[in-house]
Amino acid sequence: MSPSADGGTVERLAHVALAVREADPVATLLERSLGATRGAEELVDGGRLRLLFLHLGPVTLELLEPKSADHTVARFLEAKGPGIHHLSLEVSDIEAALARCRAAGVRPIDAVPRPGAHGAQVAFLDPKSLFGVLIELCQTPARSA
Amino acid sequence: MSPSADGGTVERLAHVALAVREADPVATLLERSLGATRGAEELVDGGRLRLLFLHLGPVTLELLEPKSADHTVARFLEAKGPGIHHLSLEVSDIEAALARCRAAGVRPIDAVPRPGAHGAQVAFLDPKSLFGVLIELCQTPARSA
Repeated sequence: MSPSADGGTVERLAHVALAVREADPVATLLERSLGATRGAEELVDGGRLRLLFLHLGPVTLELLEPKSADHTVARFLEAKGPGIHHLSLEVSDIEAALARCRAAGVRPIDAVPRPGAHGAQVAFLDPKSLFGVLIELCQTPARSA
Repeated sequence: MSPSADGGTVERLAHVALAVREADPVATLLERSLGATRGAEELVDGGRLRLLFLHLGPVTLELLEPKSADHTVARFLEAKGPGIHHLSLEVSDIEAALARCRAAGVRPIDAVPRPGAHGAQVAFLDPKSLFGVLIELCQTPARSA
């Protein structure tokens, strides 16, 4: 990959997030069907969202299980049903990446990066400005290559 | 990653596919906003689907632009609008992977693998049997690691 002049570099796909009603049966099915292994889990957004990480070889899936009906993932499930929710791209410089997005007309949902899972700084991009695709940018303080 | 006893191994994420109405404006926006670079393009399904590959560092996106109103991607766009369509997982042994999926109750859409982009053998899994997530398994004859 070639470093970008002024917007940082996409280093890797941090994860693909799936919106699910209940994470455990999905995890069990992905273990049995595709050989997934369970990773960490975490409650975020003030306990209103449970994250369960699964590993498929080098690919990380993040299961999103809302614990509150007014969480945005609960509303996603209501509107669209379970499925792929977002991509999380790890970037080398999240502030530079957000600046380049803004310059290109892609609007951040998070005006400034906020704490996400695993101690990363994260910012979502508005899918209305990105042809319907929800992308999370993240930067981890001590990333292993 | 640890090899799976009887279902092959997920080697890597081959791509994340996005359903779009027109690939070129999406490609231009992703170039400007996230530093994507254009890769190959291909017409598949008897000319009814255009594929345009984009590279975001090590991450490959596949833009799916239907050329026929009766293509399944056109119907996806009509029902859900543009957005993330499927994940393509490269596996070491697609026949073994399909057998393990079947044993776990995940139904392949393609009973036997068929030719996909880049000369790979591919098979989709029925999202109705996988909590709404559309996954393509693929195996390339000469994969570079």
